[in-house]
Amino acid sequence: MSTLEITSLTKIKRAQQRGSYDLQAIYEILDATPLCHVGYAAEQQPIVTPTIHWRRGDRIFWHGSRISRTMVAPELQPVCITVTHLDGLVLARSAFHHSANYRSVMVFGRPELVTDRDEKTAVLTLLIDKMLPGRWDTLRPMTEKEFAATSVLSLPLTEASAKIRTGGPSDLESDLDFPVWAGVLPLTTMTGSPEPCSHNSLDQIQPPNLTGYKVG
Amino acid sequence: MSTLEITSLTKIKRAQQRGSYDLQAIYEILDATPLCHVGYAAEQQPIVTPTIHWRRGDRIFWHGSRISRTMVAPELQPVCITVTHLDGLVLARSAFHHSANYRSVMVFGRPELVTDRDEKTAVLTLLIDKMLPGRWDTLRPMTEKEFAATSVLSLPLTEASAKIRTGGPSDLESDLDFPVWAGVLPLTTMTGSPEPCSHNSLDQIQPPNLTGYKVG
Repeated sequence: MSTLEITSLTKIKRAQQRGSYDLQAIYEILDATPLCHVGYAAEQQPIVTPTIHWRRGDRIFWHGSRISRTMVAPELQPVCITVTHLDGLVLARSAFHHSANYRSVMVFGRPELVTDRDEKTAVLTLLIDKMLPGRWDTLRPMTEKEFAATSVLSLPLTEASAKIRTGGPSDLESDLDFPVWAGVLPLTTMTGSPEPCSHNSLDQIQPPNLTGYKVG
Repeated sequence: MSTLEITSLTKIKRAQQRGSYDLQAIYEILDATPLCHVGYAAEQQPIVTPTIHWRRGDRIFWHGSRISRTMVAPELQPVCITVTHLDGLVLARSAFHHSANYRSVMVFGRPELVTDRDEKTAVLTLLIDKMLPGRWDTLRPMTEKEFAATSVLSLPLTEASAKIRTGGPSDLESDLDFPVWAGVLPLTTMTGSPEPCSHNSLDQIQPPNLTGYKVG
């Protein structure tokens, strides 16, 4: 995050230079939210689209409608996928050292379209089951038309990096006794009470694991 | 969000075609979080960077260190700034109609560097005071060096659009009595208890308006 204050960042190196510890941090940041931002360039104009992503091993997946702009010749277009958790506002004693606590991953590469039928079924199953374990098998099965209308893209996590900022303000030593309150206002994402569809039949009970969904 | 399900989106048109109601929706989405994702293209490679943004009237602002990659000749590079709130997971009766509730704004254009001294001071003051009203005046004043080291960029909201999805699943009529629970799992961002810096003096009281900060 290019905030005014950049001194206390932990930058996790790209895959070529990093150990399993760094890769684990990348996995954890990716897994902690389904929201990502996919950036690609349509000629000279960058376009950043929010979408849902999911991970299996050392690959990240996302999907879209066949007609969506992000899906035009995806193999040809390099993308950048960024996942960010805003964890807090950092209030320092000077404007310059105000900052934000966050965890962020950037993944670079040329997307690959998942074309193999079994593989595509497997990763779509995983998408649904990451929202709610076991859900795929309880759903009305996917039709051929729906299957064909859904494009799944993936990238390996070989060109990925993470940045993490945690902790309090990084004020100058000489500012520490400046008479203003300094500290962190933490931000977290919470799940609310599930809202059942009005068409659910009366005997349709809420899945017990729905309240176990975690984000952030 | 290019989710499997795109039928129930509200797409708010770009400024040229829209009324004040739509612009108001764009303002509200932008103002509800300081986090944005800035996309730009470094030659052919898109780069999506999380950063802090803020708004004044019909302009969006963001900033960065002079040495940051996003700051290289910013006037020359078209960008896309995207702000997204993930408001819930939408669990439908078929995999295809699973979706997410969200509010998102995309802003396009070539950034302008804020160079006028008074204007730059005014918008940096606004950044700090949006975090906590009145805070700028309580801080150790900005030095010349800090002021010079901070770049502020802006874009007008003329090329901006919003997308909003709300409500329950948009299942096919024929799926409505399929025997599975359907509904929405809402997600919200909450502030936690402020964490004071360990260097605060004992008589340094927490700003009373800190708990009033809202996000989401």
